[in-house]
Amino acid sequence: MCHIVGSGPGDPELLTVKAVRLLKEAEVIIYDDLGTEAAVELHASPASERVCVGKRGGRRSARQADIDDLLVQHCLQGRRVVRLKGGCPSVFSRVGSELRALAAAGVPVELVPGVSSALAAPLLAGFPLTDTAIGRSFVVVSAHNPKEADWESLARGADTLVLLMASSNLPEVVERLLATPLPAETPVAVVHAAGLPEQRVWRAALDGVVQATADAGPLSPSVVVIGRVAALPEQAWQQ
Amino acid sequence: MCHIVGSGPGDPELLTVKAVRLLKEAEVIIYDDLGTEAAVELHASPASERVCVGKRGGRRSARQADIDDLLVQHCLQGRRVVRLKGGCPSVFSRVGSELRALAAAGVPVELVPGVSSALAAPLLAGFPLTDTAIGRSFVVVSAHNPKEADWESLARGADTLVLLMASSNLPEVVERLLATPLPAETPVAVVHAAGLPEQRVWRAALDGVVQATADAGPLSPSVVVIGRVAALPEQAWQQ
Ligand SMILES: C[S@@+](CC[C@H](N)C(=O)[O-])C[C@H]1O[C@@H](n2cnc3c(N)ncnc32)[C@H](O)[C@@H]1O
Ligand SMILES: C[S@@+](CC[C@H](N)C(=O)[O-])C[C@H]1O[C@@H](n2cnc3c(N)ncnc32)[C@H](O)[C@@H]1O
Repeated sequence: MCHIVGSGPGDPELLTVKAVRLLKEAEVIIYDDLGTEAAVELHASPASERVCVGKRGGRRSARQADIDDLLVQHCLQGRRVVRLKGGCPSVFSRVGSELRALAAAGVPVELVPGVSSALAAPLLAGFPLTDTAIGRSFVVVSAHNPKEADWESLARGADTLVLLMASSNLPEVVERLLATPLPAETPVAVVHAAGLPEQRVWRAALDGVVQATADAGPLSPSVVVIGRVAALPEQAWQQ
Repeated sequence: MCHIVGSGPGDPELLTVKAVRLLKEAEVIIYDDLGTEAAVELHASPASERVCVGKRGGRRSARQADIDDLLVQHCLQGRRVVRLKGGCPSVFSRVGSELRALAAAGVPVELVPGVSSALAAPLLAGFPLTDTAIGRSFVVVSAHNPKEADWESLARGADTLVLLMASSNLPEVVERLLATPLPAETPVAVVHAAGLPEQRVWRAALDGVVQATADAGPLSPSVVVIGRVAALPEQAWQQ
């Protein structure tokens, strides 16, 4: 049996009760290194085997095919395996490849949702992704390959854009968005390391956000929220 | 102090560790009735005061202005107040009005993310919202007022549409979507009561989903996922 489990954005208090239970019961934990490490340290049984397949310490991350193999091998040995992923496995977690490999090997799988950084980061910065008056829809999009998205339709259709993996591509995405009908003064919030002690938030207009974050050092991991909700909290609810 | 806390979609194991702690510590719990009741029953201290402001038992739900007042009054008495909301407060939770009222009264607030049904429902039905090959963006949209959304831009821009509050408006939304370039055979999954014992999933093509769910009885609460990911799990990972 393989449990594919979301760890939330990194604060171990944002783990689900189920994730904690499964981590305690696991004989093998195969984990990425974004958002998962505190969870493993706090809850893994001392007897468990732990394999980090992330880019920790400048190492390159494991190839996806090797991760698939590793998962299948441990599961076929009949061990209780947890595959721990940052945030929620529903969002940009490359879970498809693992599901296919496990199914091909006849291994049953349970998918366990977690708190996704896409929704949690804005909340931890003080504002919700939706608001009855100014944000009734939001689109979550990977900025990994900015050329691949139809930014014009996204900007026209959704009240709010939520970019993941935008850090190094932010200038290119902003340039593409400024070529859509989206106003240059559209509010943007960049939420770095949401829920972690080093959390930082930058706020700027769309045409100023690249400059506002230019001296910040590496932005990754960050969630970038573009739209009127990103100007919240208003004076009215600021402490 | 007011903690505004997400409860996840209803399975109490999908509560966060933090939500459980805050519920145990709360002197007053003000909660909606979608996804929150098991959490309150399991974790509220016997000494706590509990106020349900949802539509339980056919009652009309409390007016938002009355909920705002109730929150403010309890907080101003210096009690530890938890405002518990289904899913994640980031998504269609009307938290803005409460934040404004609390700020106006000078009450400090903490927003605590939860697992949103928008992302969890597909995962609990066996598929992620994104897939490296077929779904690189998803838009979450309220179907409460189908006239208000720009369905054409949403359909053009996002690989996957995720509708909340679509249950009674599903026929109208489908009609509007069939007037966009979205193919009539686009896969749809309707995930009802995700994570609860009564969970049900219907799968159909866009032009067949209204008929496929016609005899189902009330669809609410359901998350409706439209796009190629909704045809997953493929044969390849089905058990
Ligand atoms: C490969 S994606 C995985 C997303 C994950 N499955 C989720 O639901 O949060 C990694 C991206 O998630 C975002 N991210 C993850 N954790 C974050 C955090 N604590 N703060 C801000 N962004 C985060 C960043 O955009 C990062 O580039
Ligand atoms: C007012 S919205 C609140 C959403 C909530 N804040 C969240 O993040 O899940 C209520 C809608 O959420 C969806 N929903 C909530 N719980 C659900 C569940 N367990 N299964 C399916 N849909 C659910 C339905 O679309 C419902 O109409």
